Amino acid sequence: MSRTQPARRPRAEDASPETTAPLAGAPADLVIGPLGGFLGYALRRAQLAVFEDFRRSVGRLGLRPAQFSVLVVIDASPGLKQSEVAAALGIQRTNFVAMVNELERLGLIERRPLDRRSVALHLTPAGAAKLKAALQAQYAVEERYARLLGPGGRERLLDLLGAVQTAPREG
Amino acid sequence: MSRTQPARRPRAEDASPETTAPLAGAPADLVIGPLGGFLGYALRRAQLAVFEDFRRSVGRLGLRPAQFSVLVVIDASPGLKQSEVAAALGIQRTNFVAMVNELERLGLIERRPLDRRSVALHLTPAGAAKLKAALQAQYAVEERYARLLGPGGRERLLDLLGAVQTAPREG
Repeated sequence: MSRTQPARRPRAEDASPETTAPLAGAPADLVIGPLGGFLGYALRRAQLAVFEDFRRSVGRLGLRPAQFSVLVVIDASPGLKQSEVAAALGIQRTNFVAMVNELERLGLIERRPLDRRSVALHLTPAGAAKLKAALQAQYAVEERYARLLGPGGRERLLDLLGAVQTAPREG
Repeated sequence: MSRTQPARRPRAEDASPETTAPLAGAPADLVIGPLGGFLGYALRRAQLAVFEDFRRSVGRLGLRPAQFSVLVVIDASPGLKQSEVAAALGIQRTNFVAMVNELERLGLIERRPLDRRSVALHLTPAGAAKLKAALQAQYAVEERYARLLGPGGRERLLDLLGAVQTAPREG
């Protein structure tokens, strides 16, 4: 980098109306066109925003969203087989085995042999304590969404998302 | 693998009520506990389902969701700078440059120099034709969701997702 201008020098072209007007305070749909009306795009943007909320709340306990969901399921249904937990969460087997290995290494869950071919998953005491703190943080986030979305809004959103998820897939 | 049993032999343990009852036709919340009531989980599952719909519709034209969104934005706002398209879509710069490179290699978009430091993005005729077909496929998917979600349901879902996305992030 041999440039001699200060890094913060204002750039004239950044202020030219031809290029920045659509982004400066204009409704987003002027820039992104019909995209904001497509469910896949709206879902992805909302999901990324909520995962960012997660990172700032439950994430501070050292858990990623998928790890949190695995702990919740094992707590709700202790003794399920690995394959059943993976199926309930819609996680592919290979990814799931890696995740279980990591949670076990962290001392949060343990595998107990069910028979010669399968193992059941249980929380350790440390895992149960971590999950309790995580649930507390998550319930606070959900309460914030409930206030944000107004009376019945959060429940309606969950219903609509459930309908989308369980819709028959075509094609 | 030296096992001698046929691979498709039914497994007795798979049918034992202790391990499969919660998954067999029972409401999902018996297995996943409070998870189904958390917005992040519900959003992620719905988003994955809708991306699967995309794969079966627009995806047949050889486009991934993020590529489709870039074409839509360039069509809606031709001549935007790379950095502006990336910002409008919330895509990180490095990922975005790789995506633009690929779309250019596919002959769907072109870079035109704006000045010494930035380039503007435009669709090629092939890109415009591809986008037209993609939009047609996408509108058919959206109409299916509109029927699925009942009167006003799709619009309400888009409103709620927008509120979640633009909520102030705490922490």
